[in-house]
Amino acid sequence: MIQKDLLHSVAAQISENYDKAEVPMYSDQLRLPNRDTVIQIIEKLQKIIFPAYFGGTTISQVTADTYVEYLLGDIFADLREQVELAFSNKVKDPAELAYKTDEAITGFFTNLPRIQELLMKDVAANYEGDPAAGSKEEVIFSYPGLYAIFVYRMAHQLYESGVPMIPRIMTEFAHSQTGIDINPGATIGEYFFIDHGTGIVVGETTIIGDHVKLYQGVTLGALSPRGGHKVVGKRHPTVGDNATIYSNASILGGETVIGANSVIGGNSFITSSVEKDTKASLDMPKMIYRVKKSDKK
Amino acid sequence: MIQKDLLHSVAAQISENYDKAEVPMYSDQLRLPNRDTVIQIIEKLQKIIFPAYFGGTTISQVTADTYVEYLLGDIFADLREQVELAFSNKVKDPAELAYKTDEAITGFFTNLPRIQELLMKDVAANYEGDPAAGSKEEVIFSYPGLYAIFVYRMAHQLYESGVPMIPRIMTEFAHSQTGIDINPGATIGEYFFIDHGTGIVVGETTIIGDHVKLYQGVTLGALSPRGGHKVVGKRHPTVGDNATIYSNASILGGETVIGANSVIGGNSFITSSVEKDTKASLDMPKMIYRVKKSDKK
Amino acid sequence: MIQKDLLHSVAAQISENYDKAEVPMYSDQLRLPNRDTVIQIIEKLQKIIFPAYFGGTTISQVTADTYVEYLLGDIFADLREQVELAFSNKVKDPAELAYKTDEAITGFFTNLPRIQELLMKDVAANYEGDPAAGSKEEVIFSYPGLYAIFVYRMAHQLYESGVPMIPRIMTEFAHSQTGIDINPGATIGEYFFIDHGTGIVVGETTIIGDHVKLYQGVTLGALSPRGGHKVVGKRHPTVGDNATIYSNASILGGETVIGANSVIGGNSFITSSVEKDTKASLDMPKMIYRVKKSDKK
Amino acid sequence: MIQKDLLHSVAAQISENYDKAEVPMYSDQLRLPNRDTVIQIIEKLQKIIFPAYFGGTTISQVTADTYVEYLLGDIFADLREQVELAFSNKVKDPAELAYKTDEAITGFFTNLPRIQELLMKDVAANYEGDPAAGSKEEVIFSYPGLYAIFVYRMAHQLYESGVPMIPRIMTEFAHSQTGIDINPGATIGEYFFIDHGTGIVVGETTIIGDHVKLYQGVTLGALSPRGGHKVVGKRHPTVGDNATIYSNASILGGETVIGANSVIGGNSFITSSVEKDTKASLDMPKMIYRVKKSDKK
Amino acid sequence: MIQKDLLHSVAAQISENYDKAEVPMYSDQLRLPNRDTVIQIIEKLQKIIFPAYFGGTTISQVTADTYVEYLLGDIFADLREQVELAFSNKVKDPAELAYKTDEAITGFFTNLPRIQELLMKDVAANYEGDPAAGSKEEVIFSYPGLYAIFVYRMAHQLYESGVPMIPRIMTEFAHSQTGIDINPGATIGEYFFIDHGTGIVVGETTIIGDHVKLYQGVTLGALSPRGGHKVVGKRHPTVGDNATIYSNASILGGETVIGANSVIGGNSFITSSVEKDTKASLDMPKMIYRVKKSDKK
Amino acid sequence: MIQKDLLHSVAAQISENYDKAEVPMYSDQLRLPNRDTVIQIIEKLQKIIFPAYFGGTTISQVTADTYVEYLLGDIFADLREQVELAFSNKVKDPAELAYKTDEAITGFFTNLPRIQELLMKDVAANYEGDPAAGSKEEVIFSYPGLYAIFVYRMAHQLYESGVPMIPRIMTEFAHSQTGIDINPGATIGEYFFIDHGTGIVVGETTIIGDHVKLYQGVTLGALSPRGGHKVVGKRHPTVGDNATIYSNASILGGETVIGANSVIGGNSFITSSVEKDTKASLDMPKMIYRVKKSDKK
Repeated sequence: MIQKDLLHSVAAQISENYDKAEVPMYSDQLRLPNRDTVIQIIEKLQKIIFPAYFGGTTISQVTADTYVEYLLGDIFADLREQVELAFSNKVKDPAELAYKTDEAITGFFTNLPRIQELLMKDVAANYEGDPAAGSKEEVIFSYPGLYAIFVYRMAHQLYESGVPMIPRIMTEFAHSQTGIDINPGATIGEYFFIDHGTGIVVGETTIIGDHVKLYQGVTLGALSPRGGHKVVGKRHPTVGDNATIYSNASILGGETVIGANSVIGGNSFITSSVEKDTKASLDMPKMIYRVKKSDKK
Repeated sequence: MIQKDLLHSVAAQISENYDKAEVPMYSDQLRLPNRDTVIQIIEKLQKIIFPAYFGGTTISQVTADTYVEYLLGDIFADLREQVELAFSNKVKDPAELAYKTDEAITGFFTNLPRIQELLMKDVAANYEGDPAAGSKEEVIFSYPGLYAIFVYRMAHQLYESGVPMIPRIMTEFAHSQTGIDINPGATIGEYFFIDHGTGIVVGETTIIGDHVKLYQGVTLGALSPRGGHKVVGKRHPTVGDNATIYSNASILGGETVIGANSVIGGNSFITSSVEKDTKASLDMPKMIYRVKKSDKK
Repeated sequence: MIQKDLLHSVAAQISENYDKAEVPMYSDQLRLPNRDTVIQIIEKLQKIIFPAYFGGTTISQVTADTYVEYLLGDIFADLREQVELAFSNKVKDPAELAYKTDEAITGFFTNLPRIQELLMKDVAANYEGDPAAGSKEEVIFSYPGLYAIFVYRMAHQLYESGVPMIPRIMTEFAHSQTGIDINPGATIGEYFFIDHGTGIVVGETTIIGDHVKLYQGVTLGALSPRGGHKVVGKRHPTVGDNATIYSNASILGGETVIGANSVIGGNSFITSSVEKDTKASLDMPKMIYRVKKSDKK
Repeated sequence: MIQKDLLHSVAAQISENYDKAEVPMYSDQLRLPNRDTVIQIIEKLQKIIFPAYFGGTTISQVTADTYVEYLLGDIFADLREQVELAFSNKVKDPAELAYKTDEAITGFFTNLPRIQELLMKDVAANYEGDPAAGSKEEVIFSYPGLYAIFVYRMAHQLYESGVPMIPRIMTEFAHSQTGIDINPGATIGEYFFIDHGTGIVVGETTIIGDHVKLYQGVTLGALSPRGGHKVVGKRHPTVGDNATIYSNASILGGETVIGANSVIGGNSFITSSVEKDTKASLDMPKMIYRVKKSDKK
Repeated sequence: MIQKDLLHSVAAQISENYDKAEVPMYSDQLRLPNRDTVIQIIEKLQKIIFPAYFGGTTISQVTADTYVEYLLGDIFADLREQVELAFSNKVKDPAELAYKTDEAITGFFTNLPRIQELLMKDVAANYEGDPAAGSKEEVIFSYPGLYAIFVYRMAHQLYESGVPMIPRIMTEFAHSQTGIDINPGATIGEYFFIDHGTGIVVGETTIIGDHVKLYQGVTLGALSPRGGHKVVGKRHPTVGDNATIYSNASILGGETVIGANSVIGGNSFITSSVEKDTKASLDMPKMIYRVKKSDKK
Repeated sequence: MIQKDLLHSVAAQISENYDKAEVPMYSDQLRLPNRDTVIQIIEKLQKIIFPAYFGGTTISQVTADTYVEYLLGDIFADLREQVELAFSNKVKDPAELAYKTDEAITGFFTNLPRIQELLMKDVAANYEGDPAAGSKEEVIFSYPGLYAIFVYRMAHQLYESGVPMIPRIMTEFAHSQTGIDINPGATIGEYFFIDHGTGIVVGETTIIGDHVKLYQGVTLGALSPRGGHKVVGKRHPTVGDNATIYSNASILGGETVIGANSVIGGNSFITSSVEKDTKASLDMPKMIYRVKKSDKK
């Protein structure tokens, strides 16, 4: 009986705290996309883009046209509903809501073949970039880097249409599966290669050229956003074509440009631009000191 | 038939190895908490702390008091059972076991409103800290940093009551979902901000002040624990109010203090204290060497 | 009706793209292992190796021999089927396929007791290495580092038998759960310790001695594989006995040797060998510059 | 390739058949309730009506008011959505649709306490009626008869409000679980007892008094509905108070009245009324013939 | 420890009993179809035959041809594999096994449009036959009778091709869901109507004409199969066109013919033929005796 | 807001009704067995009794002793826990509770081989009895009659030990799957055959000899239990060896004895004993009247 009183009192306090919060806490006005549905859409898109790997035995029995068309139809209504939900917190006029939703959905499906072509190039890049890859098939079937790029490219298309929340839900799902956090707003060229990937962060206003390679732990981030939340504009770096950035390097700042063909060594901390055709690296030999065994604690 | 013999022989060898192990391997004396139940409790706590985001449509129909009280009641017995299980390997006296369990459970529920208030401040900090955040709602709904802080604050309360294993199960679950590893023993102030987060490690005896910001890959860790397992006491750093620590920085040692308002640059390796109001950073311009294109292999 | 036309047209374009791809995209010739089955096998192996932790109440009622033998029998057919599937894309002759499959399977089960013994030593190392570990039981039950080592040791045995894809599926699963990416081809000695772990990468041709300790964010990787995919041979470093490598250090190159008993400091970037009994570290005190508060933006 | 052609041709034929069908076969105009959601609502209603049996441990921690109110809130939106869906095929005017939906929903919740009281009486009747019942608790927890009555009483309330399809989905679910088919349109008094139950059919216009007992295989059905589908009005029998109808009896016809206190023997076939206080039974002794053993094949 | 001995001894006895059994009990030679897969195939066939009811939103986005072709392709490989498994216990020659499997599979798909047409007629019959049916849509969506007929017609096609076990698994699944047990071997005409259905049994050699109506509890069964298992030939009745058989009637025997247009009253027990245009019924008024209230115990 | 008030008021009324109920409605004193766990135990017992049919591929790899012993161990703790729960509502003394639980559990496992032998005989009977059975394998794999007998024999053993509720939960589960309701208290001899089965009811005090055959819809029930709940003693019939009872026959009363070798015709209604070697049947030819076509409505 005492515990009933305890929980009753705790509930009252928690309930009061809802009222004090600056964000809606116990409001039924919020309309949020359904994370599970968004994830299912991603899984079906994977079947569409890589049928021989995730499409099961169906592909042996029907033409590719039929296979793809069915699956597109299978996700259409769900994706449309989620996009409309996501817009509906901001767009209250029904006609405008329908217009924006249709525009985003049409844009998404229209661009899917183009995105598919980009992803084929990413497959090639991820195979070429990793000597440990047994085959391109293995890359498609089990590489987290390619998976993160796939999800990013889908989310980016929705981001481009101004769809709120859903692009982020998508890339955060990939983030939780792979440890690779690519903001859906980033602009990324062709033949993008990510190796291992865990710990990679690519910020919202990053621009990445073609044939760029990123290793695990690389940050393409912002300089300290002092000055509050209102900082807008380009806050993340630009990386030129053919650049390679090794593990754990941090490259920060919206005006920082890594020139084409440059190589950034592992664990570098870069806050200003690096010219093209340059190798920038920590000069470890000068920095390390050696200790005799006896000195060690 | 040959394979039956093979498996029979392998089984016998594995079975023998159980006996040789220094830890109980095939003993029914161990009583371990149920991981799935612990995870379900976390999910229900999320519905209690952030109802408009994870509580479904129920909140439109009932008062907040009813909503919270029901959910508290819903987790009570499960949490109590798990806590008792966790204590039972060490506390054999039934009266003491009941006493310690009740104390921990009462402590947990009594402190829940206070923890909720802390989390509201964390929401504000995570929104303010990230210019890419579209809204506070998005922060609550999809930011891994906030999720890791939420789980840590729940686990820390149980840790404070001396509950074995469960706090660690909780934070390891968050770790596997987000790549952020905050030891439940760490002491963390108000308005804690984690950006991206993957690769962050916060050790058991870390003390973090208010308004601190951590970026991905930051380690607040111990210096080499040479001397065996018996090292106790403060092994991890202290971080003052308003400090900001950029990506991939490693700050080590129990006597290392990062002064208030300091900024630690990305990829720094810090093993001694940094005064307050200081910016400590790798001086990359001095360290990098540039190579002409022709020099590159 | 317009949207039906849209999807029809999009499907046709996607379908055409399949034909242009360099890898089989809409081919039913590919025979891929089943990821879910492989994961279930890992979970059952966990019950075999650590019965008191993952085996439930059954162990109270039957002898260890019976328990193990049943579970070995339970995975046998599934593992054999997956291994055969994995080989079947490369080995077309039925007799050779059966031979290679049997050889790999027999090898796997025969070596299981030996791997179990290695894992017992890893448990000891992970307990000794982490002062925050409450008990060895906690290490087995909830440490991601030990989990990643467990999966690696299982996958490595299959890798040694030349089984395609499955070893990688196994370690990528551990990677997604823990953020620790150990290539199944790596060679790792006894008493291997991983702390926290997120962001660790151990490349395919890495050789690691006994009693080695790795912290989060450590890369044991390859130097830039310029020259295309054909680079073979040893591309990743060798780490001697008793070496300790702190957080976020990157050690690269097939000829790079970290000598026995050496300590590599956090955030180091090492591309050449370090002698034994040496402590190599960024000399941060020389590199950081301090700024007065007034200077900070 | 041949099988692709086969499936292609079969698909074309099936598709053509859709067009020929008299009911909409490939139309997206149909809006059907979601069976799974309806079943979940039933399961939550069971927790509300019989908390000690299906409500789990929550009831130990919170007051009954809180418990019930939360669960009512938990089903409210789902039930409302399903009811609106069910009406929407017939009611096209949005205002009328909302009005009818609200009316049905309000009616349902308002009547819930009254239905609960009826069900308490049914519990008593089912306990009294079955000497094999160990306790009333066992009746509530595991008797299919009570379960079918519970579902019928819920469905009947919605039927009374004119809700299409959902009442039938509910009772067909109970039918599939128990073999007891009570049309939601039937009118059934207090203290209704069903024993064993499999094979019981109670038609749409049946009227059943108080304290009636039905055994397995009893049909309360219509006489042959020759004359086509347009037959309306009372087609099923009326059963008076305290009547008992034994196993496999068939009682047919809208004008057939089983008088109060009557007993209908097993396997009877009744198509005309039976006076009150009457025992009507097959006179088996007159009908059976005995055969000597030697006569049997 | 004592219980370990107990279980050990019990296991030994059970194991010995396996050897004594006349059927293979602990043999890995048996190859049985997978029940779950067979049930999934039934569910997908339901989507193909009744798309507007079970096909979800996909049908709004793609043509019927695409929809059907994809789903046919989706079940093809699974059905083929199960059919091959079912044949493989009897047919050991690989070529013959492949031939029989292909023949059965081709037959199944080729006949699907014809079966679909039959089912459309069954829908009409089930709607016409039940005045309580609100609409044909309700019949398709929630009538167990139609569901049992649907499964029977699918299973019968496989039965006709001699496929072992699978037809029975299909109809037993429908049996468990509906209480209607139609042997897949039965021959059933057009416009078949089942009302309520629970308890209906239709034996293997039954022949049923067009426009026949069966009510709950009807048995079309065999006379006593004395003489052992070897009884073959027609053992179950023949029912003529337009016959109606009311609840709980039992009609037995291979030579028993119910003439066209006849009506068999409820609870009848028929073991010899009934002429056409005849109403056969228990003459209850002659059989029942009435008792005054005072006589009742 | 109005609906919140509505639900609040409804909740209050329902809550009040709990207090008025005669059975505990909102009490946490009731300790009920877990239905899901009981069902899982049944499924594992099926693997033990019929390994080649439900045991998967494991049986190819391990000896029968190992296989059985593991599975026995796998259910032991769960069954013990459920039995203790079931007893705990009645037996409050801990020592007595433990004693009764152990006795029941020991009895169950000790008798398992004997029950297995009975079930082997039932398999033979069910194969012999049904000419439609393709093989004994098909009988084991898909016949609902055998399944119901299997569950009854397990439940009966627990009933014999006085275990409350669990035997009934078991047979009610079989009832819901098959429509066959055998009370766990019934006494049933060897070689028991059930054909089709739906609608069969076998009451608690029924005694059935060896080689008895029951068809669908047969009731072995009680005469009207007038006189209230206190009726005890034998209320259900006795059926002699080799008796056959055809579909829909109702046999009622504790003193009713069906003599050995007798045959009860379909749809019979029997309330007094039938001598041995007798065929008792409705004499339909005398009872049916024929109507010319013109007479039919």
